[in-house]
Amino acid sequence: MKLIDGKKVANQIKEEITLEVERVKLDGGKIPHLAAIIVGHDGASETYVGHKEKACIQVGFDSTVLRFEDDIEEDTLLRKVDELNKNPEIDGFIVQLPLPDHISEQKIIEAIDPKKDVDGFHPINLGRMVIGLPAYISATPAGIMELIKRYKIETSGKDVVVIGRSNIVGKPMSILLGQKADPGNATVTMAHSRTKNLKELVSKADMVIAALGQAEFLTADMVKEGATVIDVGITRVKSDQTKSGWKLLGDVKYDEVAEKTEYITPVPGGVGPMTIVSLLQNTLKASKGEIYPKF
Amino acid sequence: MKLIDGKKVANQIKEEITLEVERVKLDGGKIPHLAAIIVGHDGASETYVGHKEKACIQVGFDSTVLRFEDDIEEDTLLRKVDELNKNPEIDGFIVQLPLPDHISEQKIIEAIDPKKDVDGFHPINLGRMVIGLPAYISATPAGIMELIKRYKIETSGKDVVVIGRSNIVGKPMSILLGQKADPGNATVTMAHSRTKNLKELVSKADMVIAALGQAEFLTADMVKEGATVIDVGITRVKSDQTKSGWKLLGDVKYDEVAEKTEYITPVPGGVGPMTIVSLLQNTLKASKGEIYPKF
Repeated sequence: MKLIDGKKVANQIKEEITLEVERVKLDGGKIPHLAAIIVGHDGASETYVGHKEKACIQVGFDSTVLRFEDDIEEDTLLRKVDELNKNPEIDGFIVQLPLPDHISEQKIIEAIDPKKDVDGFHPINLGRMVIGLPAYISATPAGIMELIKRYKIETSGKDVVVIGRSNIVGKPMSILLGQKADPGNATVTMAHSRTKNLKELVSKADMVIAALGQAEFLTADMVKEGATVIDVGITRVKSDQTKSGWKLLGDVKYDEVAEKTEYITPVPGGVGPMTIVSLLQNTLKASKGEIYPKF
Repeated sequence: MKLIDGKKVANQIKEEITLEVERVKLDGGKIPHLAAIIVGHDGASETYVGHKEKACIQVGFDSTVLRFEDDIEEDTLLRKVDELNKNPEIDGFIVQLPLPDHISEQKIIEAIDPKKDVDGFHPINLGRMVIGLPAYISATPAGIMELIKRYKIETSGKDVVVIGRSNIVGKPMSILLGQKADPGNATVTMAHSRTKNLKELVSKADMVIAALGQAEFLTADMVKEGATVIDVGITRVKSDQTKSGWKLLGDVKYDEVAEKTEYITPVPGGVGPMTIVSLLQNTLKASKGEIYPKF
């Protein structure tokens, strides 16, 4: 069993980005600049945006956070999005979700200039990804693909089962792994709540992406000997073994599954740390005009 | 074995559309108007556009065809696309592919206003489809979904194998059938040239979508008793049994496969006739503002 150490890879990539930013600085180039819009005072959102800001500073990016009260009108927020679209100083930006009920998240997302949509939530970016064109890929799928790449895990011709069909993990993962690309070229089955014989299906897979959001769902009896298991789930449960009184569980019953696998991601420290790094990578790509030409 | 009679269904839908257009006329409403851009004199393209024009006239739509020589410059074509985008008389339009080499097809497709993109090729429409939002779905997948609907073929919880991963058939079909919707909710595996054990995989499927473009690829020994088989392939082969000297073959060896199936589409007369009808349906939706609000 080999552990896929997401934390270590994430730190490596941050160092790589830091070096690149330093080089840009020396050359007198433009420092990548990520902006984030946050509406209201949701605790989790504050935490996420805080982490993103911190990561930007760590790698030498410029970072701007725009904060609005949760009674902001949709039109006003749309105007703010448009200002960021037009601001040549900002390479990419995100709108932290969820938004208050009176604001249409989809309308806001579709108002973001796809060229600056470093979260990869704009349907154009999703559509371009499906077609196989350059596109911003959202944080979790991009992070998983990066781990597969860095650990040189063979996916071509492999049978992959993705459990879960969410718009931000299950669907993009099944598209990316089935794509004519490397990594990719896998035979992917996307399983979900209506899937019959899930156990049988999973037990034949060379790779399992568990993204259903059900703590410790995947047990050893479901996994083929030598399979690779990627655990996307994060569920916070009460615990009397930790100082905080809480612990994080993945969708995989790690202790019993790990020994059967060739590669496995732990929770925490697997896919999680990669998500912010993906956002940084997308911002770097934006500043370099790698996905879309800059002008 | 029940034959899925695409020709009959296509004619039914055309009659339904005709009635609806007549009602619109009586009410003094706007007649749906489809435009097509054709560049150069490719024989197949001329034929397709001719069929589309004829179908429009048949159901009472207004139809416009804009013809350009194949030395038209990309910028000029982009301007023509923009004129159609802005012309309130035109509800939807298509640019017949392929285009000459000096013109970027992707650039032209992305220049089409997604609201008028009745071919469903704009990445926004593809992306919105993936997310499960209202979107124009391209002709072949939309036609197949319509056949499944009209024949009330159960897909929920079924194991579906899509053979082929093209952007216009394989990928959208696998997304649509796996979607949380009815039809949909199937457990879909997308197979392709790199898939190992294709035969074994297909032989367990409740439904097979054959879209690999290889004449008579799917044989009886590969298909489960009682499966549903949708044949998307069309290969023209020489024949001394027809007056024209040609005949059309699907991806399915129909004669031997048909008797094992519950439902099957023939070639010709299965999926084929549905494609133009899908385009008419999308144009009707465009004129009614069903996918995107009109103003």
